[in-house]
Amino acid sequence: MTKKKMDGLVGNMMIAQSGGPTMVINESLIGAVLAAKKQKTIRKIYGSLHGIQGILKEQFIDLGRETVKTLEAVAATPSSGLGSVRKKPTPEDCAKMFEVLQRYQIRYFFYIGGNDSAETAHIINEEAKAAHYALRCFHIPKTIDNDLRENDHTPGFASGARFVALAHMGDNLDNRALPGVKINVIMGRHAGFLTAAAALARQYPDDGPHLIYLPERPFKIQDFAKDVQKVYKKYGRCVVAVSEGIADADGTPIAATYTAEVDSHGNVQLSGTGALGDLLAGIVRNKTDITRVRADTFGYLQRSFPTVASPVDAEEARAVAAFAVQTAVAGDVDGSIAIRRKPGKAYKVYFERVPLRNVAKETRHMPASFINKAGNDVTKAFIDYAAPIVGPLPAMGRFKAHRVPKA
Amino acid sequence: MTKKKMDGLVGNMMIAQSGGPTMVINESLIGAVLAAKKQKTIRKIYGSLHGIQGILKEQFIDLGRETVKTLEAVAATPSSGLGSVRKKPTPEDCAKMFEVLQRYQIRYFFYIGGNDSAETAHIINEEAKAAHYALRCFHIPKTIDNDLRENDHTPGFASGARFVALAHMGDNLDNRALPGVKINVIMGRHAGFLTAAAALARQYPDDGPHLIYLPERPFKIQDFAKDVQKVYKKYGRCVVAVSEGIADADGTPIAATYTAEVDSHGNVQLSGTGALGDLLAGIVRNKTDITRVRADTFGYLQRSFPTVASPVDAEEARAVAAFAVQTAVAGDVDGSIAIRRKPGKAYKVYFERVPLRNVAKETRHMPASFINKAGNDVTKAFIDYAAPIVGPLPAMGRFKAHRVPKA
Repeated sequence: MTKKKMDGLVGNMMIAQSGGPTMVINESLIGAVLAAKKQKTIRKIYGSLHGIQGILKEQFIDLGRETVKTLEAVAATPSSGLGSVRKKPTPEDCAKMFEVLQRYQIRYFFYIGGNDSAETAHIINEEAKAAHYALRCFHIPKTIDNDLRENDHTPGFASGARFVALAHMGDNLDNRALPGVKINVIMGRHAGFLTAAAALARQYPDDGPHLIYLPERPFKIQDFAKDVQKVYKKYGRCVVAVSEGIADADGTPIAATYTAEVDSHGNVQLSGTGALGDLLAGIVRNKTDITRVRADTFGYLQRSFPTVASPVDAEEARAVAAFAVQTAVAGDVDGSIAIRRKPGKAYKVYFERVPLRNVAKETRHMPASFINKAGNDVTKAFIDYAAPIVGPLPAMGRFKAHRVPKA
Repeated sequence: MTKKKMDGLVGNMMIAQSGGPTMVINESLIGAVLAAKKQKTIRKIYGSLHGIQGILKEQFIDLGRETVKTLEAVAATPSSGLGSVRKKPTPEDCAKMFEVLQRYQIRYFFYIGGNDSAETAHIINEEAKAAHYALRCFHIPKTIDNDLRENDHTPGFASGARFVALAHMGDNLDNRALPGVKINVIMGRHAGFLTAAAALARQYPDDGPHLIYLPERPFKIQDFAKDVQKVYKKYGRCVVAVSEGIADADGTPIAATYTAEVDSHGNVQLSGTGALGDLLAGIVRNKTDITRVRADTFGYLQRSFPTVASPVDAEEARAVAAFAVQTAVAGDVDGSIAIRRKPGKAYKVYFERVPLRNVAKETRHMPASFINKAGNDVTKAFIDYAAPIVGPLPAMGRFKAHRVPKA
């Protein structure tokens, strides 16, 4: 027996994943499992399949029986190994869940996800208190959108950002080879962080993306067409990175007129369709004299593509989950774990427990210091912020291109 | 001086890139340049910017002056380092080009590209003969579509295929986490090779893509909806890989009704739009009771994304170009270089010169042995064909998933 005093809450643990998958969400899952294995007060380690839906349906797997080899293989694999769900629990759901959790002697509950999942954890936590059910309820941060409050950045973001940057490095060269206007639509409902990461692709002065449009600034069709025309005049080509969440001055998403699908958290479905890209390409064709205009929507690849995860992101995703488990065991507490950046030149982070309500529901946005005045690009402050977490990117080769003198 | 006899045609060399970029097209460019540097009969090594357009505009760079370091950096970089073009030369263009090439003392001409670029090389070669202009004119194969006749496979395909396979590995897990129907639209105007490569993503029996639709088989909307419904019933989800070039029984591309853009080779523009994916998603929503339906169009990323190129592909792209230069210098010949696969169990290739007309214009398709009877999947023969050139793919981890007994 260890000399460290046990705080007394002995029981089983339930962990689940919720919301959109990321490339490193399994690092958090495995980080929590490996940390839990070391805790005397945690007996069984159960995983609920597809978030809280698995609790309601009593669909659990015994993560304590998985070998370290399997755990590590899953950690290195993108997307949610336990399956995911987008579901906001009702008070009736909570009552049913406590009945189930009680039967499985669950005292520790961890929910890996974004702001909606934090809201779910917050609801469960409040309902548990009201029902006098002793549950240490924690949210573990995850979202490629990078829009969780309290956090400097969130696990999953840097890997998605790495995909977006790499994609733009290649796409910029494609556009340079066959000039025209290329519009790339990137995920991000309300926050432009992931779209902004396209700027990391730039290595030469004429490299795209030449324009970046974020949900944080109203999108004006006339200005957009003018911006594109101006870049095209200068470089003979133009690469545009645009967030799926761009909205007009009234806050209506430009893409919203094309879909009526809404999830149980009230979010309009923006991904999984090429409509916004095609709309923007049509605007350029109609409002300029440019003929070669193409649009790509990066879609789900940016959150699930294997082999491109940021090592810093993977490491932090694992560490923050281990910290959540250690915190839950150490005292009679609940909350979410926030990632904070230490001031100073060298990149360093630390973790801090914050109240669930501080990260639930509402999201944060790109700070003004990250966006240029014209609202069509990012600033150096954003590059300085994102570069250390995205990690070094491969150098793109280019000829010195000595012109052959006229014969 | 070397003892090897020089065949007498001393002069400068012009090389250019044409058509859609690939991840390894610069390997061919640098392979040719490095091989040319070793030839006594080749004096200057010039690169024409944007294919034959650079010849007409006299825009050349001196590749002989680039350092090996720069050459190697460009070789490892996706997309066409010299720029590209889609242009079919007229007899007037040819006459103008010969006037320019003569002034720059060009005796060796290499054109890296697909079937349209081979047609361009063929036209230039025939016009050169008619004009009695001594020119050793070669086409060097390149196309992610893998549809060049005479070739077992073409440089660029395996790297594009690797992207498509990796993308489906991640996307299959995304779809497993948040079940529904996911449709992925993949490049390929007439040949389904690249779409077929999605099958390489499968590692577990229930892995997607569950359905694969190719341009080689007529696409029937009713059958498509039935296929999806059947898979969804079995797995509770369905991942579909579909070629942008799928066409109805009359040969009309399903996507063609959505675009009127046609290039100078007469090709309808299919890429750079999400319309086909959205159309197919709409069909599933309307003809089944499945609600969560998403579509992604992989777009230009599959030909330009850095860090995922197949090493076998990169090596062959370089070697085939070097072979073209060596062949051009060795005798009074012209042609294209074809990649052939040696019979036998171990993967091995060899190169062979073929007449330009054999690869120009017309394309080849997936052989019937690569497509299943129902026309909605590939066969093991295709996997055996593609696996050695795409290279080993990372293993996706999965829990053993011991179910927790009911409490």
